[in-house]
Formats: sequence, structure tokens, C-alpha cells
Amino acid sequence: MDVEKLLSEMTLEEKASLCSGADFWHTKSIERLGIPNVMVSDGPHGLRKQAEEADHLGLSESVEAVCFPAASALACSFDTELINTIGEALGDECQAESVSTLLGPGVNMKRSPLCGRNFEYYSEDPYLAGKLAASLVRGIQSKGIGTSLKHFAVNNQEYRRMSINAVADERTLREIYLAAFETVVKEAKPTTLMCSYNRINGVYSCENDWLLNKVLRDEWGFDGLVMTDWGAMNDRVEAVKAGLDLEMPGCKGIRDKEIVEAVQSGKLSEEVVNTAARRVLKLVKHYYDNKKENATYDKEAHHALARKAAGESAVLLKNDSILPLKSGTKAAFIGKFAKVPRYQGGGSSHINSFKITNALEAVKDIAEVTYAQGYDTKEDKVEEALLKEALKAAAEAEVAVIFAGLPDSFESEGYDRTHMELPACQNHLIQEITKVQKNVVVILHNGSPVRMPWLKDVKGLLTVSMGGQAVGGATIDLLYGRVNPSGKLAETYPLSLKHNPSYLNFPGTEKEVVYGEGVFIGYRYYDTKDLEVLYPFGYGLSYTQFEYSDLKVTPDAGLKDTDTVTVTLKVKNTGKTAGKETVQLYIHDKEAYVQRPEKELKGFAKVELAPGEEKEVSFTLDNRSFAYYSELLGDWYVETGDFTIMIGKSSRDIVLTKDIFIIGTKTLPFIADCTTTVGDILKYVKNADELISQYGGNLMPSLPIDDSEGLGEGTAEMMRQMMDGIPLHSILSFGADFHSKDIQNIIDMLNNQAK
Amino acid sequence: MDVEKLLSEMTLEEKASLCSGADFWHTKSIERLGIPNVMVSDGPHGLRKQAEEADHLGLSESVEAVCFPAASALACSFDTELINTIGEALGDECQAESVSTLLGPGVNMKRSPLCGRNFEYYSEDPYLAGKLAASLVRGIQSKGIGTSLKHFAVNNQEYRRMSINAVADERTLREIYLAAFETVVKEAKPTTLMCSYNRINGVYSCENDWLLNKVLRDEWGFDGLVMTDWGAMNDRVEAVKAGLDLEMPGCKGIRDKEIVEAVQSGKLSEEVVNTAARRVLKLVKHYYDNKKENATYDKEAHHALARKAAGESAVLLKNDSILPLKSGTKAAFIGKFAKVPRYQGGGSSHINSFKITNALEAVKDIAEVTYAQGYDTKEDKVEEALLKEALKAAAEAEVAVIFAGLPDSFESEGYDRTHMELPACQNHLIQEITKVQKNVVVILHNGSPVRMPWLKDVKGLLTVSMGGQAVGGATIDLLYGRVNPSGKLAETYPLSLKHNPSYLNFPGTEKEVVYGEGVFIGYRYYDTKDLEVLYPFGYGLSYTQFEYSDLKVTPDAGLKDTDTVTVTLKVKNTGKTAGKETVQLYIHDKEAYVQRPEKELKGFAKVELAPGEEKEVSFTLDNRSFAYYSELLGDWYVETGDFTIMIGKSSRDIVLTKDIFIIGTKTLPFIADCTTTVGDILKYVKNADELISQYGGNLMPSLPIDDSEGLGEGTAEMMRQMMDGIPLHSILSFGADFHSKDIQNIIDMLNNQAK
Repeated sequence: MDVEKLLSEMTLEEKASLCSGADFWHTKSIERLGIPNVMVSDGPHGLRKQAEEADHLGLSESVEAVCFPAASALACSFDTELINTIGEALGDECQAESVSTLLGPGVNMKRSPLCGRNFEYYSEDPYLAGKLAASLVRGIQSKGIGTSLKHFAVNNQEYRRMSINAVADERTLREIYLAAFETVVKEAKPTTLMCSYNRINGVYSCENDWLLNKVLRDEWGFDGLVMTDWGAMNDRVEAVKAGLDLEMPGCKGIRDKEIVEAVQSGKLSEEVVNTAARRVLKLVKHYYDNKKENATYDKEAHHALARKAAGESAVLLKNDSILPLKSGTKAAFIGKFAKVPRYQGGGSSHINSFKITNALEAVKDIAEVTYAQGYDTKEDKVEEALLKEALKAAAEAEVAVIFAGLPDSFESEGYDRTHMELPACQNHLIQEITKVQKNVVVILHNGSPVRMPWLKDVKGLLTVSMGGQAVGGATIDLLYGRVNPSGKLAETYPLSLKHNPSYLNFPGTEKEVVYGEGVFIGYRYYDTKDLEVLYPFGYGLSYTQFEYSDLKVTPDAGLKDTDTVTVTLKVKNTGKTAGKETVQLYIHDKEAYVQRPEKELKGFAKVELAPGEEKEVSFTLDNRSFAYYSELLGDWYVETGDFTIMIGKSSRDIVLTKDIFIIGTKTLPFIADCTTTVGDILKYVKNADELISQYGGNLMPSLPIDDSEGLGEGTAEMMRQMMDGIPLHSILSFGADFHSKDIQNIIDMLNNQAK
Repeated sequence: MDVEKLLSEMTLEEKASLCSGADFWHTKSIERLGIPNVMVSDGPHGLRKQAEEADHLGLSESVEAVCFPAASALACSFDTELINTIGEALGDECQAESVSTLLGPGVNMKRSPLCGRNFEYYSEDPYLAGKLAASLVRGIQSKGIGTSLKHFAVNNQEYRRMSINAVADERTLREIYLAAFETVVKEAKPTTLMCSYNRINGVYSCENDWLLNKVLRDEWGFDGLVMTDWGAMNDRVEAVKAGLDLEMPGCKGIRDKEIVEAVQSGKLSEEVVNTAARRVLKLVKHYYDNKKENATYDKEAHHALARKAAGESAVLLKNDSILPLKSGTKAAFIGKFAKVPRYQGGGSSHINSFKITNALEAVKDIAEVTYAQGYDTKEDKVEEALLKEALKAAAEAEVAVIFAGLPDSFESEGYDRTHMELPACQNHLIQEITKVQKNVVVILHNGSPVRMPWLKDVKGLLTVSMGGQAVGGATIDLLYGRVNPSGKLAETYPLSLKHNPSYLNFPGTEKEVVYGEGVFIGYRYYDTKDLEVLYPFGYGLSYTQFEYSDLKVTPDAGLKDTDTVTVTLKVKNTGKTAGKETVQLYIHDKEAYVQRPEKELKGFAKVELAPGEEKEVSFTLDNRSFAYYSELLGDWYVETGDFTIMIGKSSRDIVLTKDIFIIGTKTLPFIADCTTTVGDILKYVKNADELISQYGGNLMPSLPIDDSEGLGEGTAEMMRQMMDGIPLHSILSFGADFHSKDIQNIIDMLNNQAK
């Protein structure tokens, strides 16, 4: 398939026609030129491919596939290799099902625990989300299948997601809400990217020239195709100009025609349409170039991978010497989710699993347990009969394992939660059981943090999140110690929803949502504000213990921001069980021009260690590890000064630190204007006093700043700071002779003379 | 003096000349027409009148006067009558000193504990600040003296106050940062107002047409003169257009000339200059019309008033059965401030007190005490000899009363604090003393909250703030029970500076400070975010106890937002000591379109009660008590729904509540645009479906929203919310037939048809 040749043979109408889908899941074909279509399908933690005769809204049951753990679970694995392997499996499934592009991963930030779609996202930390999603993309694309990085950008809630205006300053966008996209684009080169529905600072993402042309393509070097989220298109001509290639699903040709008319009337350059059509053709070519004929995949092997992944992703949050269970312990499994696990969320990522392993089934080859349903999920009300049965089972056992969590209707695409509660009937059940049984372990199915009023009364707490179709098996592996828990939270569990940084602004009003907390999302906020949390970011227990030592930083002197820094340390398994530990590296900037978070994750590494084994872990830090985004500079900026390298078991458990001094090589620009102060001028401009004296002015009138004067003991400091803070126009009020008109001349002169 | 006649006789140059000061403290006179000048002087909690031969920067020692408690102290009295009386005293002093206008009060908000000038401001609550400052203005102006309400507006820090851009949304400005000004302007009609140095959303206050012409004059009805803060003038022509009449101090005539040139070149209407000159003339006339010849005042009587005011303003924060002291108790007074009280802050409000009463002197007629200096204030270092002497005195006494606080250099106009600490030497002293003496009382001199690491080890804590020149006497009155403490905190004491709502944004960068926390200042933040605090807003102990009962609300049904609501309750002194209680009324809006604070102060009343006495307290609530500022409406708006009336002893100690339902009579406007959703249309537009079908579209395509479909259990809810959230342009993607061009027609149609 010769893209350029085909393009040259196409009419304007044909090129425009390629700029929207044929239907819900296909690009358009052009028979005249032998251009076939390709199919795209929902993902990303499984394949949701609809049968060819699917309804026009994409809501029907999809073909059977394997449901891997959702992103919210996988993120807790902190395991890029594992996620890469899952990507490869997904790629194989797409090849087998003739799907060109899996629509994912989603790397939006978990700004609030309430976002309905949090389970599809990785983390409150953009570094972690970016690194993990890049692994997934690499895995999928290694099989010749495309991905669609979504939802670009600043789509962190479901409430009015199709129209709401997300208002955030550029630093916040760059450091938090665009950063994970940047990592994936630069490191994994996804074939396509999906624009979000919402507006960003007033402009729809789909027609946002700054976002798509300037940031995504020019700065990050993205050379793939950009498509809309389904139904996100607003102004077709503005969108194609902004770099939006493919409108999905279809538009009955209406908007293709608008493109044609715009070219004909001269409002739109045909070159822009060529570019969009070319990208669609490249997508088609990429699929057929890489298509494996008669591809199949091993469903059971993928199921086993899903079980392994769920085991790596679960996080042991509390363990008062109760886990792992012994196979001989008389256990009661309580809760509907033991039998019907809640293993995925609702919406476009909903997979038709070919098989589901529940815990009750999986436990059979290890231990005998009793079971009681305990609650139902259809309605949130206490069923007395179920409760009674559960209490009996719990009382008669040596340990009660309660499977709790958020039902489907609590977490879904399309709407946000309004609270952080579990169903009241489940809280009631757990609390009642703790009254008859002292040994209680709670298994939690949740895509987002929940409040746990009974927490102090249970001895064990393991979140398996939305662990995919094999979650039941993984839960048994973990409960009975076949697998040692190694997951760490990718998201803070706050003490109260009200403590969440977005609480005062989420989900905004009918028109807009203001990101008033700026860059202070998740632990960046809790740690900077010194707020107690329930479980910090990066937290997770193991059945063994790890010790860290020998932190070394090379080079440790004479460092410039253009250098690469190597950080090494040793981690030792000091317990009696093999296990994995995720070492976390955070950076603390000791002083900065802007307010920076107390710490920021800049490295993580998962290490497997036999009992007594010690390994060296190594991290490489670069400019970006220390930089913040300076709006003044319009670029990333490392400020000269001290930084602390923090090695932690979580964001709140920093065990090793080392300070280094870095010399920044970029300089913030000095731009004089009517707000420029005497202090600024003295700092940035050579011979400032002399220059200004040409106009009869005097930068520093000789002030009586003697403490004995009449304004109090602080007078000297007050006068010094006042003089520093005086803008040019006020010098006139305090003794200078120059005319107001001179001020502009002086400003121009200062700009020319800046050091 | 006939203002209009004079004006008609003046040349343009003469009129322009009146628009700036003659020197630091005087307006210009015009001999030709017999127009005299008037003098203005710094205030506001005393008169800082400089001798006529003062230096040109206004820094010299001023004439002797009476220093009343600073605003930070007076605010804790919650006593409008007391403050009115102080205003009268200040008015008398100005008459005696031939000062036309006292430059104050300052009603900027205490956004951060760090603002260097906090001691000059009243509160973190605009209702309280507004009501108290209005009383001061009424008191001063009742003596024929003018006031200058300052610093208008959004000047809540000293850092770069002369140039920084304060960025805040309009609701935040209206509800918080302008609200106290509004109250004073409407209720007390100050003769003048002083513009702040800073910019607000990009525009200098002094040339801010929206602020000065639209809000201040047109909306609030201000008819006085607006002057600059000293040296704040930037663009003279823009400023006079914006309603800025008088530039202070002088400008050597340079900017007067710019006014003349602008009129001559047609850039400025002479009418605008006439208006400004007229306001200056009116100020002059007002002074001479009200001047009392040979006025004097009774310094000692004012000193007594200052002592009374300090007693009413002190807040008893902790009392583990240690206070009041008995005269026979062997007490050691420790700390330099016992002898040299810290009674005022530094800067333009610094008064040359004619007399200072310290605690050591005042205690003489009640008890014999020992004294040890303990620390020095010049340098923050532990003086071993002083410490040793203090420990000895403490150990030998039955109780140690430590006078601690922030020295002058810690709190001053001109620069902010960088921390909330007391001098380390004082903390050390207090902690050491608690090791040798179990009965420790700390007297605190502070204009802002401080951290108190020794708090749990002392039995008594009384803040006398910056209590004015008689603070030593008042402290003795309170310590020994001659006066029963009745002050309540006008500002929250947070557990940590990091918890402060502005912490992530204060004091901003070189160019701007973003008010990211919006309306959530002080207790509005701590209470909404459910953060523990050290001492809440409105908190303060007494030597007696009060009980509240019989909360009644009239009318309590069928209420409209145009009605007036009367709230009554009974307060009883159930202790054995006479005392005063400040009853606080807060409003909680149970549900609102915007995120509102958990509670907002809308009434307070200070009641004096003999032991066993009970009184009825009454509050009147109106529209504004329940309203928030709707940017959508461009006005104050009461949303129909339930409100809770909360009666509290502090913001965290609500003892009586009552819910009422209010019907809002205003409607938020519906304005269709490209973000308008199906849900909006169905809510606001009659026959919407029919209207849209004219264009071949369909508002609600018949969707399969059956739970049995493939997206999970939440599908029905997801589809319902998705449909509600779909904007017009997306209907096209989901089945409508209309052309994009039709969308604008439909929008226009919808705007015409809005219900």
C-alpha cells in the first residue's frame, strides 16, 4: 500500500471522507482505490470487540475475551515488565480478532476519589502513570497492533465531561495533567491518540491547536493519528486545523462535507486535509502490513497471566499477624463477591470474560471453607436472613474472610460517585461480624479509595481492586501465602473525602471546573500540607521485611542540570519469605521560586528477593527529575540549589536521604514592565542607577532607615523591603524627577540592558 | 465655602493641581481663590500626626497621642459599641490636632497568618471585619473627622504589595475580599477610601474602573473621595478616569500636568477632572465646616478607655483552673514584655504613646510579684544569665506568669513573616520554666497566630494581642479577675501553617499571587475541609459559664428570599461571676449549585450577664445572610432550599440549630451556547424536542439502556447521565441529521424559547 500514491489519486471528497468513521468501529474504505477499512475496539485491560452486526451505539455484548486487571489494579504492581507482558497478550488477542487498534490506555490523573472512571486510570502520580502506560503500549504495539492513548487531556471526571471547561494554569497542565501523556508519547510512540470531550481553558480538546499541534506534535514529536473520543467533535474545520485527523464514530458524511466546503471556499488549506487523510491511510497500512493471518491466542495462558497480574497488583493494607492463613485454619468466606467477584468496572472497558475464577472455587485445592453470601448487590439494604447466616458462619469459624467492595453501579464510566462509602449493608455486615469473630480479614474490590468505618476492628485488609477475571484465584494465592503481596498503592487513601485537594472544586459548576489546587494532586498535596492520611501513596505490606542501605549518588559534587545522576542503594530481604519490594525515589527541592510539592516521585524499581538476599537497585536521574515547568521561561527549569534525594517504602516512609547541590544552566528571563521593581532592576540590570539617573531619577533615594525613627523597631527592615518592592512609577512619588512618559523609555532601556 | 462656585472659577491647571498632595500629609491650597489645604494623618488605632516640619518620607516621630488596641485585638472584642466609642475618642484627638482625616480603618482580610500587617486588620471573616470597622468609622466621623477606608482592595500581604497581581475570581472578590469594604461603605459612609498598591486581575487598583466606578460608586453608592496609598499612582490619566481623585503624597506637579495635557489633547474629558477636584474641595469643606476651634481632649480618659478596650479584647485560650489569680498568690512575672509591653506593630500605624502602662507597674496595687526579664528582644538568642534568674524566680513562686510574644521586628508593615514561630529564646524559656514550675500562665502579645510547642505544659494562656498603651493594666485586670475575659478569636489558630488555606499560594511569585482557595478563607476552609485546628474562630473562655436555649426563627415557614427573618434565643450566665458572652450566628446552606463554605458568620451579639441572669438575644437576617455571589447571574443569589441556622459559642461549638426552607425569587439565566447539553435544554426550554425536530434532530435518540447489555450493571445510569450531558454538537454524532451550521440556529432558537 503506497500511501503517497493513493493520496495523490484521491479526490478532495475522498480525502475528507477518510476524516470520519464509517460506523461505530470502522474507518471508511474507498473501493475505487482498493483502500480497505480497519476496525478499532474498546479496551484497554481486555478487548471489547463488538460483533460486526453491533448496534449503532456500541452498547451490545462483545466477543469473549480475557479481562486483565484494570489500570487501577495494575498500577499497584509498579511492575513495568508485567504490564508489558499483558500488553503483548492484548496484542495477540487483537491480532486474533482482526482489530487494528485497542482504544487505550487511559492516563488521566486520579484527581478525586469520586471520578467514576478512576478504575480505568493508573494513578494520582503522572510519572508512575506514564511509565506504566508506556509499558502497556510497547507490549501491545510489539504485536503490530495500534493503541490509542486517551483521553487527551484534563478529563478527570465524568460529570459534564462532554462540555465542561477544565481551567488550569500551564504549569499544572505540564507537570501533572499532560505529563503522563508526554512520557508515553516520547517513550512508546503510540500509533494514535484519543482527544477528550471536554474543553481546556475554554477550547475543546478536539480543536485545541495549542494542545494538538504545539504541545503534542511540535514539542513531543508525536507523528501518529489523533482521533476524537466518540461523539466529541464540535467544529470540524477548526478541529482538522488543530490537528484532529479522525472523527469517531461517523457523522453521516455531514462534517466531511464541511471540510470539503471549507477547502473550496478557501477557509481551509487542502494540505491540512491531506495531512489528516495521510495519517488515516498510514493507520490502515500499518494494520495490514503487520496483520498476522490466522492468528490465535491461548485463552488459558492469558487467564493464568491475568491471575499472576492480579496477585502482583493486590495491596496488603493491614495485617495484625493474621495473614497468610494456614490451609488448616477453619475459615468462613463471607460476601457475594467471594462467589461473583467484582473484577471490572462499567462502561466502554467492560469485557465479556470467557471465564471467571472466583475465590470459593479457587480455594478448593488448598482448604475447605464455609460460605455465606452476607449481602446482595442489587439493592443497598440489609437482608436479615443473609446477615444471620453470615454471622453464624463467622462465629463457627476460626477466621472470617469478608469479600466486600463497590458494586458495578457505584463505579462506572459516565458518572461520578458522590461519596467514598461502601454500600451501607456491607459496612453493617462487617461491623456485625467483628462482634462475633475477632479474626476478620477483609478483601476489598474497589477502583478508588473507600471509607472503612470498621477498619480498627479487623485484623487484615487486602485490596484486590478490580483484579480482572482471575481475581478469585489471585486472592486465594495471596490469602494462603502462595504469593507474597507486593502491591503498593498508586493513590492515597485519605482520612476524609473533604481532605482531598480537589474537594473545594470538584466537580465544578455547569460550565467549568477550576483546578484550584494546581500541581498539588494526591500525595503532593497531603505531604505538602502535612495532613494525616489513612494509607499513603506507595504504601503496601509484605509477608517479609526489607532493609535499605548504602545510598550513593554519583556524581555528588559539581553537578549541573545537564548531567545525569546515578543513584544506587541496597535492598535486603531480612525476613523468612521470598518477596518483592518496590523501592521509590522521590525528589525534594529545598528552595524554589515557585511553591513546589514536598516531594515528587522520580523513580521506582520492583526487586524480587529470596530470604536473606540483597540486591543493588539503581536509578538514573536527569534534568526533568529536578525541573519544574516555568511559565516565565516557557520551559522546564532547574533552579540552582539543594535537592534531597529521598528513598522510601512509601511517600510517608522515607528511609534514606541524601542532599545534592545542582547548578541550573538556564536563566529565567528578565522582562521589565510597569510592575518591575527596584529590587528586580538591581538584580538583573547592569549599571541600573547610572541608566536611570539619565532621566533625573534615582533608584535608591537616601532614606532615613534608622531604627530610632518613629515607625517601630522593624523600620530598617521595612524600609529595605519597601525599597526593593517599589515599582518604577512609585519612584516618582518618592523623589524622582522623571515624567511618567519616561517610564516607558526606561523600561525599554532596561530590557536592552538586562544582564 | 461654595464648592461649585469655586470649581467654576478654577483653571484646568488649578483643578488638576488639586488631584495630588502638596506634600506627604497635605492637600494643595490655592491662594488665589482662598482654598486652604487640609491635613491627613496615619491611623487607625491612634493618631500618628507628624510635626509640620516632618521629613519628606513621613518617617519621623509623631506628636504624642493615645495608642488604642490594634484592629487585631479590638476585633476579638466583637463589640461594636466599644469600637464606636474608640472612634469618638480618635475623632476628638484629630479635632485637637487639626487633622482632617484619619487614614483608616483597614479591612483587608487575614488570608495568611504570615501577612506582616495582620495586626492592622480585623479578621479572616468579612462580616465581622465590616461590622466592626463600620463602628469605628461612625465613631470617628461623629466628631466631624473624616476616615479613609483602606486598602482597597485584595491587599492581603506585604510581599511585593506595590506591584503584585492578585488573581481571584469575582465570587471570591465579592464574598470575601470586597465584602467588608461594602459593609463599611453602605453602613458608615466613610468620607474617603484609600486604594491599595497592588493589581487585581491584572489592573492596578488605582486605575481599576471596574473596582472604583462600577463596584464602589455605582453599585455601593460611595460618594466620597478616593485617594491612592502613598506612592501607588501608576498611570495618572487612567486613574482619574477610573475614579481615583487624589494622588498621595505629591508628584512635584508632574502628573497634574499629565492630566492637563490629556484634557488638552482630548484624551480625557474635563468633566472627569471637575469631578475629582470637586471631591477634593468637598473634603476640604467638610473639614472646615466641622472643625472645632480650640478642641482638646482628655488624655487620661482616653488612656482609661484604652485599658478597658484591651480588657475586652483579650482572649482566654486555656485555663486549667489556674485563673484568675488570687492577690495573695506568690507570683513571678517573667519576660521583658511585663516591663516593656509589646503593644503595637511597626509601620505607618506606629503611635508615639504619651504614656504606657506595663503589667509590673499595674500589678502593684493588687499584689506583690517578683520579676525576671527572662529574654531580650534585640537578638533571638538564649541569654544564660537571664534564663537562670528567671528559673530561680519561677521556682520560688507559686505561679509563673510569662509575658511572651512577637517582637517588633517580627510583625511590621512592609514585610511578611516566613513562619509562625515565637522567638526561639522565648520558647526555650517557657519550656524550661515548665520544668521547675507546674503553675505557668503565658500572656501572649501577638498580632497573628503563633505556634506554641509548650502549650500542653502550661495551665493558662491569655492573648492580649497588640493591646495598646494600657495593655499592662488590662492584663492585670484580667489575670486577677477584676475583668472577666470576654474576647473571642477573630481568626483561627491552625495546628500548622501548612494547613492554612493560602499555604500553597502564599505569597505568590514575583508577578502574581493566585487566590486558589477561592472563598475558603479561615474557618470557611478549616470547617469545610474538616481539619482539626488549635483554636477555632470565635473561640474564647470566660471565668463563668453560659447556657443557650429557646432558639426561635420567625417566620419559620413560607419564607422567601425577600423576607426578613428574626432569630431569637436565650443566654444565661450559669456561673458565679458576672461576664460577657458573644453569641455567634452562622448559616449553613444545605445544597447549592456552587461549593459553599460549611458555615458563614451572619450575626454576632455581645451580652453582659450577672450571675444567674438570662437575656434574650435577637438577630435579623436578610437576603444577603443566605446569598452567595453568582457570577452567572452577576448578582447575589439565594438558591431555593434548606438552610441551617447555627448558633455557636465558636465556629466549632455549635449549640443550637434550626433548619428553614427559603424560596429564592431570582432565576439563574439560561444562555445556550456550544456547550449546552441535552439535560440543560430539557430543563430550561419548553417544547425542546419539537423545536429541534424541525432540524431533523432528535434530543433523545431511543437508546438501548437495558442492564443486560454489555457495559456492566451501571449501564442504565451511565446512559441516562450520558444523554443528559451530551452537548448539541454530539447529538449529531449519535444519530441526528442536522448540519453543523444548524447548531448555531438551534442555539439562537433555544435562547429565544428559554422558559
